[in-house]
Parts: sequence; C-alpha cells; structure tokens
Amino acid sequence: MSTCCPKAPAASVSDVLALMREVCPALEPEQVSLADACGRVLREPVCAPEDQPRFDRSSVDGYAVRLDDRASRFRIVDEIRAGEWKPRALQLGEAMRIATGGALPGDRLQVVMKEDVRAEGRQLTVLRREDEHNIRFRGEDAPAGRVLIEAGTVLQAGGLALLASLGCARPLVTRQPRVLHLATGNEIVSPDRRPARGQIRDSNSTLVRAFFGQWGIAPEQARVGEDKAAIEAALAEGHSRMGGCDLVLISGGASVGEHDFTRALLHESSFVIHVSKTNARPGRPLIVAQRGDTLALGLPGNPLAHFVCLNLYVRAALEAFSAQSARTGFVTGVLSAQLPAGGNTRETFWPARWSMHEGLATLMPLRWISSGDLTPLAAANALIRVAAGAEQLQPGSRVEFIRTERTS
Amino acid sequence: MSTCCPKAPAASVSDVLALMREVCPALEPEQVSLADACGRVLREPVCAPEDQPRFDRSSVDGYAVRLDDRASRFRIVDEIRAGEWKPRALQLGEAMRIATGGALPGDRLQVVMKEDVRAEGRQLTVLRREDEHNIRFRGEDAPAGRVLIEAGTVLQAGGLALLASLGCARPLVTRQPRVLHLATGNEIVSPDRRPARGQIRDSNSTLVRAFFGQWGIAPEQARVGEDKAAIEAALAEGHSRMGGCDLVLISGGASVGEHDFTRALLHESSFVIHVSKTNARPGRPLIVAQRGDTLALGLPGNPLAHFVCLNLYVRAALEAFSAQSARTGFVTGVLSAQLPAGGNTRETFWPARWSMHEGLATLMPLRWISSGDLTPLAAANALIRVAAGAEQLQPGSRVEFIRTERTS
Repeated sequence: MSTCCPKAPAASVSDVLALMREVCPALEPEQVSLADACGRVLREPVCAPEDQPRFDRSSVDGYAVRLDDRASRFRIVDEIRAGEWKPRALQLGEAMRIATGGALPGDRLQVVMKEDVRAEGRQLTVLRREDEHNIRFRGEDAPAGRVLIEAGTVLQAGGLALLASLGCARPLVTRQPRVLHLATGNEIVSPDRRPARGQIRDSNSTLVRAFFGQWGIAPEQARVGEDKAAIEAALAEGHSRMGGCDLVLISGGASVGEHDFTRALLHESSFVIHVSKTNARPGRPLIVAQRGDTLALGLPGNPLAHFVCLNLYVRAALEAFSAQSARTGFVTGVLSAQLPAGGNTRETFWPARWSMHEGLATLMPLRWISSGDLTPLAAANALIRVAAGAEQLQPGSRVEFIRTERTS
Repeated sequence: MSTCCPKAPAASVSDVLALMREVCPALEPEQVSLADACGRVLREPVCAPEDQPRFDRSSVDGYAVRLDDRASRFRIVDEIRAGEWKPRALQLGEAMRIATGGALPGDRLQVVMKEDVRAEGRQLTVLRREDEHNIRFRGEDAPAGRVLIEAGTVLQAGGLALLASLGCARPLVTRQPRVLHLATGNEIVSPDRRPARGQIRDSNSTLVRAFFGQWGIAPEQARVGEDKAAIEAALAEGHSRMGGCDLVLISGGASVGEHDFTRALLHESSFVIHVSKTNARPGRPLIVAQRGDTLALGLPGNPLAHFVCLNLYVRAALEAFSAQSARTGFVTGVLSAQLPAGGNTRETFWPARWSMHEGLATLMPLRWISSGDLTPLAAANALIRVAAGAEQLQPGSRVEFIRTERTS
C-alpha cells in the first residue's frame, strides 16, 4: 500500500486499521507509581508473591475456638485485633476474641460470630453455633505464584487495588506516546474569538485534546496558519522539544487543498506516504505517513471527519503503541430508528448514540447533514458502519458499530 | 430511614440509592475553560448563537458558477480561499475558484468539483456537471436559537468540540465535589512496605483514588490509625483545609469492630445517621450519615465490598451532585457461564466481565471467594445483581447488572 502517488487507489478502513497495527510498535515499558498507572497498560504478568491471603484471617468479629470443642461455655483468654499476630495453641474451653481481619492464632479453629454469643467479662456463652468457619484461609483466594493480572491489561481502579495489595507499588507499564498536533488553516480562529465572515472557530484542537485525554495523554498543540515553511518549522520544533514524536497529527487547513498540502509537506519532510486517501465517508482525504519511529496522520479538517478518524485510526494506533491486549472492534447492535444511508458509494460511519435495552445494544442514529456538521457530536457515543451502497436501513436492522468511549 | 439506632432494620440497595439521590444536592455551577470542562456536566442548555454554518460554504475544492449557467467553458475571475470573504455577483460565463470551506460569493451558485474540470490559466472547461451543489448552506446544520446541547449533558470530546465551534469557550458546569477519604485501621500499611504477620497492605486508598479519577476528582486522602481522637482530628482538619467537604469516605479499620466504630465516631461528630447497615452482600456494614451539607459514608474495609459500595452508592452520589441527567442504572444481560449464587439470604453483587457478542450484553461471572478477595477486580467491569435466595444460575440466564466504568 506504500506509495506517494496521488493516483494510488483509495484504502479501505480495514486496510488502514491493519496498517496502524503493523506500523505502530509497542512503546518501551517504564515503571510508574500506582497513582500514575491508571489507564496504562501492564507489560508483564503480575503473580501472587505469596499465598493470598497470607495468613488465616477472621472474616467476622467474633470468638475463635477449637473446631473440636463443642462446649457452649468458654473462657476468653486474649484478644486479637487486626494487624496483631498472637500465635497460641488454644486449649479445650478457651476462646480468643478476634476482630474481622485478625490473624487466627493457630489451625483447626472456628470463629463464632459475636451476634451468636453472650460475653460477660471473661465468660463466653455460645448461643448458636453454625457450620461456617468464618475464616478466610491462607491461599484460598490464590496460591503463591498464580498469575493474577496478565500482561496487556489496561489498569483500572480494581486492578490497581489488586497491585497495591500485592505490594506491586511501581508496576511496569507502557510509556505514554509523545503526540504533536498541528491545526493548520488561515480560516480558523481560537474558540474565544469572534470569527470574521468566512472564518470559523477551531474546534478540532479541543476535540483532539479531549480525545487524547481519555488515555491520559496531553498532546503538544499549536494552531498554525498555512504557510508551509512555518508549519515545517513547527513540526521540527515540536519534534525536537519533545525529544522525538511518536505521533504527529495535522488537522487540514481546508483553504489550500488540504489533501495535497499535507501530503506534500510530509513528503518534503522525508516521510514515506503509506496512504493518501480512503474510501470512507466522512474522512476520504487521509494521509498516513512514516519517518523512522514517527507516524504522521493528516486528517481532513471537517469536524465529523476528524471525530471518525480519531475514533478509528488514532485509537488503533494508541492501542498498538500501548500493547493493550484487547482491541476496540466493531460489534453488533440493533437500530432503534431509520438510518437514511442513501446508497452512498463509500462505506459510511454514521454518528449514533448506543445504549442497552433488554440486553440488546440499541443504536439511535443521529441527524447528520454534512461532514462539517458538529451538531451530532454532543450526543454521539458510537459510529455505525454502513456498507457502501446501502439504502435506507429500517428500525430493527442489525448493524455493526464501534464505541467512541475508551474501552478496556 | 433516618436513625442512629444500631438495631434499625437493614436498608436495601434500592433504599440507599434512593437516599443518595435525595440527600445529595446538585452542587453550584461554575464557568471553566474547555480544557477543564472534560467529563463535567453542563448546567444550562447551549443554543446555536447564529445559523450553523454561519455562511454558505463550499464542501469541496472546485469552481463556483451560476446555477443557471449551463455553459461548459468559463473564465476564472478570482479565487476564494477558506477564511476569505469576497462577495461578488457572478456573471454568465464567470467562475471563481473556491477551496473547501470557502465562503460562497453569492446566492444561486453551484460548486463544480476540481476533479470534474480542466483548468488552464484563466480558462475553465467543465467535463462533468453533477446535480450536487457541493455547498453547505447557511443554517442547514442548525438555525440560530436551536438548543444544541441540553443541560445535564456530560461533556466529552465531541460535545466540547461543538461548544468550541459555537464560541462557548467557558461553559457553565457543575463544580467538582470536595472529597475527603480516611483509611482507618492499625492493620494496614502502605503498598510499598512489607506488612508484618497479621498486617495487610492498604489497597482501598488506591481503589478510591482511581475510582474518583474517572470523574477528574482528586480526593484528599490520609491513612489514619484507629485512635478515635486522631481520626476526629483528621476529619476536622481535612474539612477546614478544604473549606468544607461535600463527601467524606471512611474506610473501615476492621480491627475494632469497624461498623460500630465509624458510626460512633460520626454520631459524636454531630452527624445524623441515615443508614447503619444494608442487606447487600458484600457491603452489609455501611454507614450513611449527614451533617449540614456534608455526606459521610463509612465503608467496610474489605476491598470487594469497597468496590461494590463505590460503584453503587458513591457513583449515585456523584451523579446527583453533578446534576447529570442520565443515571447509571441496572441493565439486562445474559450469563455466559454458571454463577454459583448458593442461595444466600442477602441480595448479592457479583463481580463480572461484560462484553458484547452478537448484539447481546454477555456476562462472565468472575471467581470470587470472599469479600476480602481482590483477585476478580483486575478483570471486573460489571457487577451482577443476584436476588436474595437465588440458587445456581445457569449459562444463558438473564441477569441485571451495572457497569463499573464511568458511563455518560
């Protein structure tokens, strides 16, 4: 597919997704604190370093007695609080008060819940004795050596808590990619400025920043005009300031033929052009280029096309860079309303809102006028994949879709 | 349900969820930058301040000609780049070169795509003329005044981009809640320390921090022992340092009867106790208390119970505080494996991994030994609600579940 010829055939979305997985290497791992590891991808399996739990623990507040001691009256000989270690061979007729989480003083014991006894001073009367031992036995959750978290797992709250409990306080995770984003075009102005007639506010910089924010990545961003030398300078400067970029995104300034412009710019900066257009709608003009370890994408400036390219190609790149084992893919859902596909000759990605109803993934296609139309983006959390040539799809039709929230 | 009597009946999960929505007021709104608004909840509807788009724009690179001019040869009289405004009444035989996004110079025009013409100097030959106007007409996405984002919307990448395009650079969103978390107990040590026999590493502080991180909230955290005076001091100090807390979480130190301990502590600190236990498993010991504008929750120290209480009650509190219009609720899915419910007398929340298969939400119940067992938490992204008394549930059974990822 590698070519810089403008007449090269348009790549399909599947081609581009496969290319992303091929050209984006897993980035190097690094050790970070648990606080910094949230959302990052674990790079080595983490085993139980010792039996889990490490010792027999009471699961209730109560009184430890010998299993073989069926008496109903006992003498309370000591108290064990959580955190204490008081080994002792209990004799017949002896009980030890023990708190939830407390370490059992020996083997072959049972904990009688405090709700089932009457205690007066050192005298204990057992009112009810259940079969339940009320003990979390050493190793019952996992024996030492068992893999508890696989490499490739995205670390979320629960996984981080498990790492904390295992003493893995600086897990090995993939480093974050260094991302540079250049918004080109003379027609764009900052969102807090009033555009003159013919101008528009730059929404893509906000979109890109928030998209990467889902991965905890803060891209370096600059709004540049459309002077080629200035953009080349911004590219070189960003690259050098960041100590090398893994990913460069160039949002097309539409005013000078964005497609040719970005391609020429990258070509002249020694990038090899892999893709120069797709057969997808929106997002037909798309540049994928590479120079050494740097991947560059030229995205069409239209906001909806941007949204689609970020959620398809850039997401695939980030998943490949991170060495995440689970890939976000297309899944099946059911339309809850008509989708006026209109027999377009290109495969189309339609903004939609998905939700679950009665166990089914249900999709509401959103009103969408053009690829410059941002209005569906506030509600969109999915993109429906509509086959080339498909006519109007009826409610109840099965469709493929991809979620635009980050998944793990 | 308001009581401080230890013998009060156990609250159901539904009771506690309803209570959260009742006692957590929507916090005040504030204006923040778009960069800070990600994940926050919009507090006022945002309308199109003007027609969207604001002017007729070309959707392609091409040549503007009069709609009523059916000639095939034209004279190129000027060029319009995006960002420029060059009003002109085109005459018959005249064409203007126009870039994607460029403002049309007048009405009743059509843009012929550059792929459909041959241009030599000022001479233009139209090779093919489609019906398509290739114009995004003023107001076609939305007329001025239409509500484009409703109050109560969680702002994600797409919604923020829409706000940017509308010039709403400092949206009105709900302020973040001020959260204080105290991990109590003598038995817990920092995750980077080796616990003595009888001790365990503190995983709940990591869990709580990462859980709140999904909302962009950084709780103030302290690991305190179990000396009541010291904990009261930490509570008072945190409260005053933060200028008042909206939410206080106390993770139970198990060693002194965590349930009674936290309840007594809060009662003596002038909190009104609303709930002092539930009939849910895990998470039976649960304190919900209130003092003025501060809500306090005492959570059982067991990590799985913690995970359940955070994802049920604390999530409901955060959604109520934020004035988010969509609530995370239970949805239906299908079991992909047996769930050994075991006829427990309490409603049970079972850690599971959900995914979509063939349009159906499918749930894999995770192996779970006890409420102190953290091992399922690395993979869990859902909790299955198992009715009290339910016996073994078979694969293919329909179950209710709640996602543990943040949803919007």
